[in-house]
Amino acid sequence: MSAAGDAAATPARVLVTGASGFVGRAAVGALAARGFDVHATARRPPGDDAASWHAADLLDAEQRRALVRAVRPSHLLHLAWYAEPGAYWEARENAAWVSATIDLLDAFAAAGGRRAVLAGSCAEYDWTAPQPLREDAPRAPATYYGACKDATHRVCAGLAQRAGVRLAWGRLFFLHGPREDPRRLVASVAQALVAGQRAATSAGTQRRDLLHVDDAAAAFAALLDSDLTGAVNVASGDAVAVRDVVAQIGIASGRPELLEIGALPPRDGDPELIVADVARLRDELGFAPRHGLAAGIAATVAWWQAQPRTAVSDSDGP
Amino acid sequence: MSAAGDAAATPARVLVTGASGFVGRAAVGALAARGFDVHATARRPPGDDAASWHAADLLDAEQRRALVRAVRPSHLLHLAWYAEPGAYWEARENAAWVSATIDLLDAFAAAGGRRAVLAGSCAEYDWTAPQPLREDAPRAPATYYGACKDATHRVCAGLAQRAGVRLAWGRLFFLHGPREDPRRLVASVAQALVAGQRAATSAGTQRRDLLHVDDAAAAFAALLDSDLTGAVNVASGDAVAVRDVVAQIGIASGRPELLEIGALPPRDGDPELIVADVARLRDELGFAPRHGLAAGIAATVAWWQAQPRTAVSDSDGP
Repeated sequence: MSAAGDAAATPARVLVTGASGFVGRAAVGALAARGFDVHATARRPPGDDAASWHAADLLDAEQRRALVRAVRPSHLLHLAWYAEPGAYWEARENAAWVSATIDLLDAFAAAGGRRAVLAGSCAEYDWTAPQPLREDAPRAPATYYGACKDATHRVCAGLAQRAGVRLAWGRLFFLHGPREDPRRLVASVAQALVAGQRAATSAGTQRRDLLHVDDAAAAFAALLDSDLTGAVNVASGDAVAVRDVVAQIGIASGRPELLEIGALPPRDGDPELIVADVARLRDELGFAPRHGLAAGIAATVAWWQAQPRTAVSDSDGP
Repeated sequence: MSAAGDAAATPARVLVTGASGFVGRAAVGALAARGFDVHATARRPPGDDAASWHAADLLDAEQRRALVRAVRPSHLLHLAWYAEPGAYWEARENAAWVSATIDLLDAFAAAGGRRAVLAGSCAEYDWTAPQPLREDAPRAPATYYGACKDATHRVCAGLAQRAGVRLAWGRLFFLHGPREDPRRLVASVAQALVAGQRAATSAGTQRRDLLHVDDAAAAFAALLDSDLTGAVNVASGDAVAVRDVVAQIGIASGRPELLEIGALPPRDGDPELIVADVARLRDELGFAPRHGLAAGIAATVAWWQAQPRTAVSDSDGP
């Protein structure tokens, strides 16, 4: 029995933040499909029909609190964060999102909210710890982004407990799919090959846990619609070499000859392997991804083929 | 050469938060003595002459930002936090202070602030780690208060670095002195004995690092007036058994027969020993406490003897 899907009752009202972002757009649809009354917020709402949209800058305390008062959500899915590709790992803006996230949860609880899922990140973990990373693996973030997500989790978990909110913390790993910011790896290679341009990458021997964005969104919707609390990895549980992902883009686009794998040096300190233990997601939540890697890459390439060449989309970090 | 004490220049302007609290009141005097232009804030300012006072609720985002805009401080000494005796260890309010503290530092930096000292706590440390606790000892807070202080430190250290603010984080241990909240140990025993009432305590074999509040305030003022960054223990470096402190109150009040040491059971999980390594404070800052324990206790007892019996003061936690 789901909170959202109980046909006899008023549908549960969820506030989704970061709803115009890479995960957010997909999450709006996944929540609507589960029967939630979806209230979506973004600084610049795209304004589709799957949700009631609210324009708000969540870094502005007054707008933040007014939004919660206006929507009075029973559920909260908080995806918003600073996510400028490249910059977000070490950006000052992470601090403001810690502050805003804690205050948002506080306001949500004060307005009667009872169930919240917040987006965390694999960047919270000690990447040198044994893999796969279970939710109780040591946390020692290598980046300021990771440190800020981890601090937010620690504070918000305690706040939720004290405020009568059941909180789950969904740790995203690496994502792919249509509408990804073209400054990120999969999107940048797909966009280049589709445009007939050469794409230079590192040797790509490092392996990552890559999940399709629609699966990530569906997992968040299922998590929100469950009673699970605590940290939950939102990931595939499979490690794939970056060079194999890139090669797959070559195949899907029909232009493998444009790839220059190994032309760029490896990034300093880039870990060899980052992969999630997904036992909680799979066994406790009962969630299984529906998009295989090859099919997902093919769909992403097809999406880029359908875009005008100047298209730039929103993005999310892991 | 101190920022505040350079007679040829405009005195450095410091904003002191929590200025009506146990440490805050003493800090206002210590900063004024160093030549700072002191702007003090509290929800209910006592309004003495050592500072320009500003009434503000720092948990209100608009009041917080308006205060920083009005004062435009070059220096910040942030002592304010939720400190209700007994309750603060696990209170929900800690979360709001994390959020407010990060935002305050952000606003301070945006308004041109360059030097900040924030109050941390020995509660951030893993109390089971080897003693004395050096600043790089493992952090594994046993309380929500400690977790929130630690999270604040991690986020604010990174924010300061990115915003061009030199930040030091002063970790307070245990304090004593006049004007302490009478619900805390030293004050409660002193108040009882002065009133001719019996005072029951635990066996008090646990040892603590106890510093006089005027020394803590002077250390914070010296720290703010220095270039030291990072965490600095603000403590005595000496461990004293709680039973010896209580006995000292008996002596100072002339009523040792009113003590019932051992009448109460020990508190669950109360660590045997909490004591600071004070090498940074002593050697890098050059600070030495001026108040010995016996003299400080005697002064505290004298202060209680001079009070009407209903006096209740503000308080701070460690």
